[in-house]
Amino acid sequence: MSDRPQTPTLDRVSSPADLRSMSDSELRHVADELRAETIHAVSQTGGHLGAGLGVVELTVALHAVFDTPRDRLIWDVSHQAYPHKILTGRRDRIRTIRQKDGLSGFAKRSESPYDPFGAGHSSTSISAALGFSVARDLGGSPDPSLGDAIAVIGDGAMSAGMAYEAMNNAGHLGRRLFVILNDNEMSIAPPVGAMSSYLSRLYAGAPYQEFKAAAKGAVGFLPPPFREGARRAKEMLKGMTIGGTLFEELGFSYIGPLDGHDMDQLLPILRTVKTRADGPVLIHCITKKGKGYAPAEDRADRGHATATFNISTGEQKKAKSNAPSYTKVFAQALLDEAARDGRVCAVTAAMPDGTGLDQFANRYPSRCFDVGIAEQHAVTFSAGLAAGGMKPFCAIYSTFLQRGYDQIVHDVAIQRLPVRFAIDRAGLVGADGATHAGSYDVAFLSNLPGFTVMAAADEAELKHMVATAVAHDEGPIAFRYPRGEGTGVEMPERGEVLEIGKGRMIQKGEGVAILSFGARLKEVMEACESLGQRGITPTVADARFAKPLDEELILSLAEEHDALITVEEGTVGGFGSHVAQVLAESGVFDSGLRFRSMVLPDTFIDHANPRDMYAAAGLNAEDIEAKVLSVMGVETLSRRA
Amino acid sequence: MSDRPQTPTLDRVSSPADLRSMSDSELRHVADELRAETIHAVSQTGGHLGAGLGVVELTVALHAVFDTPRDRLIWDVSHQAYPHKILTGRRDRIRTIRQKDGLSGFAKRSESPYDPFGAGHSSTSISAALGFSVARDLGGSPDPSLGDAIAVIGDGAMSAGMAYEAMNNAGHLGRRLFVILNDNEMSIAPPVGAMSSYLSRLYAGAPYQEFKAAAKGAVGFLPPPFREGARRAKEMLKGMTIGGTLFEELGFSYIGPLDGHDMDQLLPILRTVKTRADGPVLIHCITKKGKGYAPAEDRADRGHATATFNISTGEQKKAKSNAPSYTKVFAQALLDEAARDGRVCAVTAAMPDGTGLDQFANRYPSRCFDVGIAEQHAVTFSAGLAAGGMKPFCAIYSTFLQRGYDQIVHDVAIQRLPVRFAIDRAGLVGADGATHAGSYDVAFLSNLPGFTVMAAADEAELKHMVATAVAHDEGPIAFRYPRGEGTGVEMPERGEVLEIGKGRMIQKGEGVAILSFGARLKEVMEACESLGQRGITPTVADARFAKPLDEELILSLAEEHDALITVEEGTVGGFGSHVAQVLAESGVFDSGLRFRSMVLPDTFIDHANPRDMYAAAGLNAEDIEAKVLSVMGVETLSRRA
Repeated sequence: MSDRPQTPTLDRVSSPADLRSMSDSELRHVADELRAETIHAVSQTGGHLGAGLGVVELTVALHAVFDTPRDRLIWDVSHQAYPHKILTGRRDRIRTIRQKDGLSGFAKRSESPYDPFGAGHSSTSISAALGFSVARDLGGSPDPSLGDAIAVIGDGAMSAGMAYEAMNNAGHLGRRLFVILNDNEMSIAPPVGAMSSYLSRLYAGAPYQEFKAAAKGAVGFLPPPFREGARRAKEMLKGMTIGGTLFEELGFSYIGPLDGHDMDQLLPILRTVKTRADGPVLIHCITKKGKGYAPAEDRADRGHATATFNISTGEQKKAKSNAPSYTKVFAQALLDEAARDGRVCAVTAAMPDGTGLDQFANRYPSRCFDVGIAEQHAVTFSAGLAAGGMKPFCAIYSTFLQRGYDQIVHDVAIQRLPVRFAIDRAGLVGADGATHAGSYDVAFLSNLPGFTVMAAADEAELKHMVATAVAHDEGPIAFRYPRGEGTGVEMPERGEVLEIGKGRMIQKGEGVAILSFGARLKEVMEACESLGQRGITPTVADARFAKPLDEELILSLAEEHDALITVEEGTVGGFGSHVAQVLAESGVFDSGLRFRSMVLPDTFIDHANPRDMYAAAGLNAEDIEAKVLSVMGVETLSRRA
Repeated sequence: MSDRPQTPTLDRVSSPADLRSMSDSELRHVADELRAETIHAVSQTGGHLGAGLGVVELTVALHAVFDTPRDRLIWDVSHQAYPHKILTGRRDRIRTIRQKDGLSGFAKRSESPYDPFGAGHSSTSISAALGFSVARDLGGSPDPSLGDAIAVIGDGAMSAGMAYEAMNNAGHLGRRLFVILNDNEMSIAPPVGAMSSYLSRLYAGAPYQEFKAAAKGAVGFLPPPFREGARRAKEMLKGMTIGGTLFEELGFSYIGPLDGHDMDQLLPILRTVKTRADGPVLIHCITKKGKGYAPAEDRADRGHATATFNISTGEQKKAKSNAPSYTKVFAQALLDEAARDGRVCAVTAAMPDGTGLDQFANRYPSRCFDVGIAEQHAVTFSAGLAAGGMKPFCAIYSTFLQRGYDQIVHDVAIQRLPVRFAIDRAGLVGADGATHAGSYDVAFLSNLPGFTVMAAADEAELKHMVATAVAHDEGPIAFRYPRGEGTGVEMPERGEVLEIGKGRMIQKGEGVAILSFGARLKEVMEACESLGQRGITPTVADARFAKPLDEELILSLAEEHDALITVEEGTVGGFGSHVAQVLAESGVFDSGLRFRSMVLPDTFIDHANPRDMYAAAGLNAEDIEAKVLSVMGVETLSRRA
């Protein structure tokens, strides 16, 4: 572990108010030290690095100029908020970030008054900031200290329709509002889309260097009182902006592009707009993701997310894996299928790496589509592809698929179009916490007529499900699988096409039947091993399908056992609820069945490692064992039931 | 009933192919007759009128120039597709539109090969069209006849982020694709937002009249062969467009604005772009909603939707209502609350009339926000308002709330922000059919931690729920209510604040308990009346809350009865599933309970009147009665159970 950096100026900052009495020169020192502190902290904890390094100067400048927390500073996505957390009273806990009971890796309202609006997903900040601005203007707020609202949003996030909807509304309302466009030409992957090209043209064609020089000059000329200087700076800026930009057409004043790492540009311009703005203003800052830390800058993803690492080399200390990750298994299986079937194509919403589709894009560039952070479009575009005869695999994390829900209902399900949904990060996901939990997909998909919904119990099952999805042309089909590595089962040479709506028997036992859906099967089997030592052998089946349900299997399990327990990595409303409906309608409950449905609890579960999160959820092997014992009427003192 | 119009030229059109051998002059006749036929048909059936009248010329021109159905013509929303249906082999059934077993009021894949992509919700067409274009270019389609894709989208629909996401992707991909922007300055209400202002500026500043004259002139000059004329037309157009538009910045060629009712502009320009386009093209047409029918043109909503009417006067034959509509009750209740509490404000996504918020906007313009067709933003903007101390009522139809699902989870629920969701059109909605059914909201909201979910059993209950929502500051709260008129109950002077999570007993009976959630209560009581004649008196309770559940009530009903039946206007995964979970975890099933959950069936139910739709769903009084009898073991031959 390397020594903590020397940070004499930063050490004087216990809250942002301390920045406001510092000279510009001191603020530059704060920024440099804040960068070193951020690098050191993340080297010890792992987490999001590149995005934070890209906004160090912005963070210092915004807190120095605006009156946070009275002014509401809203970070889009907010994985770039580590430097912000260090400045806003959380420096002492920054090395607990993303750990159990530690700081969240994102902005979080419950964590600090300096986090007025939490996030995790992208492109929400302008909507939220507009809400604050309007609340302030209405004066109806019980909070008399509500000041300005400032949204900091990346260029990648601007591909989402939601950001456009917010700009469209903000431009129309014309209220004082600040949007900092943090343009680093990167989201997690390089951004795509026409807007991204447009932003590139904006600064390619702009008098960038001259602007920089002039802005620096302006600082030199700033006479007391400051207000006069601000007026001059504003006039100067006005003459230098490009004019007629897309943002101006949408009702914003546009300022930029400017160098987001140059405090001599940031400070005077922010001071000017703060003094003078009387409507929505967009300030276009060019930044560099990973800025100031060579190993991050050199990585393809600019150090987006990292394990703990050695500061001097940048080398990450990654745990050795025992089995291939589900993501890799999916990616490879899809590649194999694509080699056999030219109609197989793939759609990702700005997550080519995370979904494993980067390999697909390399091998079959014409059949792989990164549509940007645009899940709504991704789903309906896939529906169009399916209607045009293709076999689209729409690969979106469970939590982000929520963004395309209406499109799933309206464009895919109602039209019975054979879109294949590859749903990664299903269930609890670990350090990203509640905002990224994939808790709801089974519930929100399984009540859609004509849908087929599968969950993989292990990585071999996942391979079968990819093959099943390729073969299934009768309507939409989805398969979900968790984050992380598989169980280490032997992999089949080739995925086999599963019979739709049929589960599989894992072990025959007696008394209690456990019907597992998805990757909790491993925990179920661990529970059974422990139960075996008590002489209890439950029957275990893997449902494979939440829709259509294997009613024959369910009813025979109910008939042949005193108790039936369903286990899944999702909430009530999902698999267990559909099983309950079948049991109810079949009259099975009439004469008694000890039925239990183990689901995620009715709480948002904070970040921790997945095992700890599932412990909090009561869905680990010990919980399943306790549930079996409790349903059998065996008293257990020390266990939860 | 007025006589059918004389349509000698239209009578020669049995499919769009017939248009392609007609002269431009004949096509103009077809358009005129098509307008008369559309007016006459809708006068007999009711339905969407204004939007169809606005695209009569466009419809004729598109089918005459493009090779439908090989070329895919995709109508956004598609309530404007009545003239299209008349031209595409469905004229003989046009007077069955929106009736049970008749034509759908929207484009529908299962209805015609000329409807390649159905709709109902807005802003999906560009995504779908891009999917078709890519499928064609990949050549992987088994359909060798896949031609061009043309999306026709309104200016109102352009406020939705999804349309922007699609443009952003289409501009990036650069494939041949046609987008017709049907700009009538109206969606259902006048459109709002900066994009709308931008479009107005585009044609306010454009040499509209000169363009018209020049385009007309071009037709006169068109020499054989046509290709040469097309080249000239294109050159001419190029010189006349404004250039540097927002659409061009997003990678589209922009043509327009042109008069969408002038066949002398439409035909040559469409022919030109069809011949020459090698990338995405946006053709900006100015049209008039309700065009050519004075009573529609004169209405504030331009004849958006209508009952049957008298053609000569435009007078609508509306059925007399017996009770105030739920929408009106909500609107009035909210006005009353807003008068008492300055923090109450309201958000609508382009539906001020449909949600009843038009009254609110008139009375409290500064506290009412129409954000455009932008449900994602509407939800997060409301979250921002709530975080800023306001009491936002986010009024969105159940079906459209699906568009804001991720925002509900991520921005509202996780942060426990007290956004109030007023969910109109819950359950089956009648003539709009499956795309507009509000089937899923209870399921997708009730598994969100911290949410409160209510459903109104009648209009007095709705008034109480508005008051309850105003008072509830501890987290998000939603209340749902159906389309149409209330039950005629006596209305309280003022809504009372309900105890959160507590249901109410309606009648004490024995043997069977019915636990109703929402507006099926009326049907439950009818069923009970009929059962009373057999000497059967079920206990009836109104749950009021799907979350938090009244567990005490549920368990006591279970304990005191042999059977418990839940009834709701939603799918499995909703209220009944949550009740089943409580029963299971409490061990109630262990010793037997005749539990049944009556929910919407696992099919999309086609348009009809709501009563017929609920009959198809098996949720009317007779179905509830039959369920009671069946669960009691009473044999009934003629009833469904």
